[in-house]
Amino acid sequence: MQTTPPPAFPADGQAQLDILAAYGRLFGGNATPVRMTPLMRMPGSAIGVDCAEVWLKLEHLQIGGSFKARGMFNRLLSAAVPAAGVVIASGGNAGIACAAAAAFIGVPCTVFVSSVSPMAKRHKLAALGATVVVAGDHYPEALSACLLRAADTGAMLVHAYDQAEVVAGAGTLAIEIEAQGGLPDTVLVSVGGGGLIGGLAAGFASRCRIVALEPEQCPTLHAARRHGHPVDVEVGGIAADSLGARRVGAIAWDITQRHVNDALLLSEQAIAEAQTWMWNEMRLAVEPAAALPLAALRSGAYRPEPDERVCLIVCGANMDPASL
Amino acid sequence: MQTTPPPAFPADGQAQLDILAAYGRLFGGNATPVRMTPLMRMPGSAIGVDCAEVWLKLEHLQIGGSFKARGMFNRLLSAAVPAAGVVIASGGNAGIACAAAAAFIGVPCTVFVSSVSPMAKRHKLAALGATVVVAGDHYPEALSACLLRAADTGAMLVHAYDQAEVVAGAGTLAIEIEAQGGLPDTVLVSVGGGGLIGGLAAGFASRCRIVALEPEQCPTLHAARRHGHPVDVEVGGIAADSLGARRVGAIAWDITQRHVNDALLLSEQAIAEAQTWMWNEMRLAVEPAAALPLAALRSGAYRPEPDERVCLIVCGANMDPASL
Repeated sequence: MQTTPPPAFPADGQAQLDILAAYGRLFGGNATPVRMTPLMRMPGSAIGVDCAEVWLKLEHLQIGGSFKARGMFNRLLSAAVPAAGVVIASGGNAGIACAAAAAFIGVPCTVFVSSVSPMAKRHKLAALGATVVVAGDHYPEALSACLLRAADTGAMLVHAYDQAEVVAGAGTLAIEIEAQGGLPDTVLVSVGGGGLIGGLAAGFASRCRIVALEPEQCPTLHAARRHGHPVDVEVGGIAADSLGARRVGAIAWDITQRHVNDALLLSEQAIAEAQTWMWNEMRLAVEPAAALPLAALRSGAYRPEPDERVCLIVCGANMDPASL
Repeated sequence: MQTTPPPAFPADGQAQLDILAAYGRLFGGNATPVRMTPLMRMPGSAIGVDCAEVWLKLEHLQIGGSFKARGMFNRLLSAAVPAAGVVIASGGNAGIACAAAAAFIGVPCTVFVSSVSPMAKRHKLAALGATVVVAGDHYPEALSACLLRAADTGAMLVHAYDQAEVVAGAGTLAIEIEAQGGLPDTVLVSVGGGGLIGGLAAGFASRCRIVALEPEQCPTLHAARRHGHPVDVEVGGIAADSLGARRVGAIAWDITQRHVNDALLLSEQAIAEAQTWMWNEMRLAVEPAAALPLAALRSGAYRPEPDERVCLIVCGANMDPASL
């Protein structure tokens, strides 16, 4: 089921201009609450890995607790929002970021969630001023209701990951990392729907290696590669809350084919171990999705060269701290 | 009761050379596990304060979960450690950092704690290879036992905050902040025994304003100022675990008289509110002691000028995340 026909993502030169424009929208003269997050640089030995440097891009300190704010603010600031406001289907980080962006701009936001969406997230959405609509028992039903509402009211449709402005917003991370640390040799990044890796891969445009990381139980990119095109997969496991998109986005599929060679699967155990290690040894409280990059290093799934500089994207921290 | 006769801390010019030497020991050719921690820069509006910039020095991401590693590694690397190893009296962050430094150098470490020391911290110390000795029911008894052991065995005595090398190690934070962000206008920092503020004040040497922050229930610096010299105080409240030294150190007293004009007291409620806000709005999981700087801003206890750049020292994160 291809639910939203996404506008094609522009070719490389234009994509980088679009990412630069997004950077200007987020951090230019009219400041938004989107944050430039810190880059923490350590020798590989600090995490028990034989490589020159490990960088942690602490994007979980972003407003809304995940990288999603970059794409959502860029989407909402890229065009005039109609009086009917914005609509999005998401029970998670994208919905929270969209609601925050709508609150900043001062437009109505309606978030469609399924009945399995946790009450804690619904309360967070409501606290941000969004209207929460429960539609059906699964994400596709919520998405259908969202599309219908957009068609009925003329509200701006915001996709959680598969829209050009959303991907370009995530791509501002590439600019920021390069400004803070220079060009890394390798970027390790988790993949759900692919908005994050799409932005990073478009921004770096093969100037460094991008390694896609997926939980064994949420293999959307792996499935697309096996079939030669995006397909629906079953999703589950400890990171499904953030990485549980059922298929990789068309934009991310396009970009990753051009700029991403390496894709790895990680076990539940490796992800959980890395998440625990990040708290115990670094006092980074993060959600499982944000632990995949460290899991790839610590499990040996990705083995860097001794002179390599590896950048880990720590993408979100929306979880219950008691779970640590 | 003056328990350890501290060596006098050197005058300003020499103090800054000692801090530079400490920086070289920690981050020079022979790398230690001590981390350069990130500086996060935001507009004041991001935390609801009308000032130009707020910087957060994320020192809770330091090895051992607090700034203490800087002083402990510097102390142990400043002189040859005798075969009898090192001894320290501390049930908290200083003991953990000292044990980590001893493990790195490969010398025995004995940590004297009182019977009220939490089992979790004793296990952490043991996991780092330290020998834990329970001596008495209060800190002074643990300290007496520690001094006796040092005299008996010739072990190197390490003080949790009132030794020149320990203070100079903490002072490396000043160098690092200035390298990362330039000179701030103001630094807001929590005070317990004073090792941290002593190092920062010696490092910045009145080139910027340093504001001392204490919980109402742990007012060691305020009491010293009232009496004209350090005195014992009763300590309690939510930050006593880290800031519960009974009197400010002689070194910190000396330095703060020269370089610190402003000292503020913060309520339990303001500290707790700031700690909660840091998790909810920034995904920073920190201990109460690390929330005092934000509490000073959010409560209005410290009111910056509109053009001011204020640096908050986020000093530690050794607490149970479930408490968030």
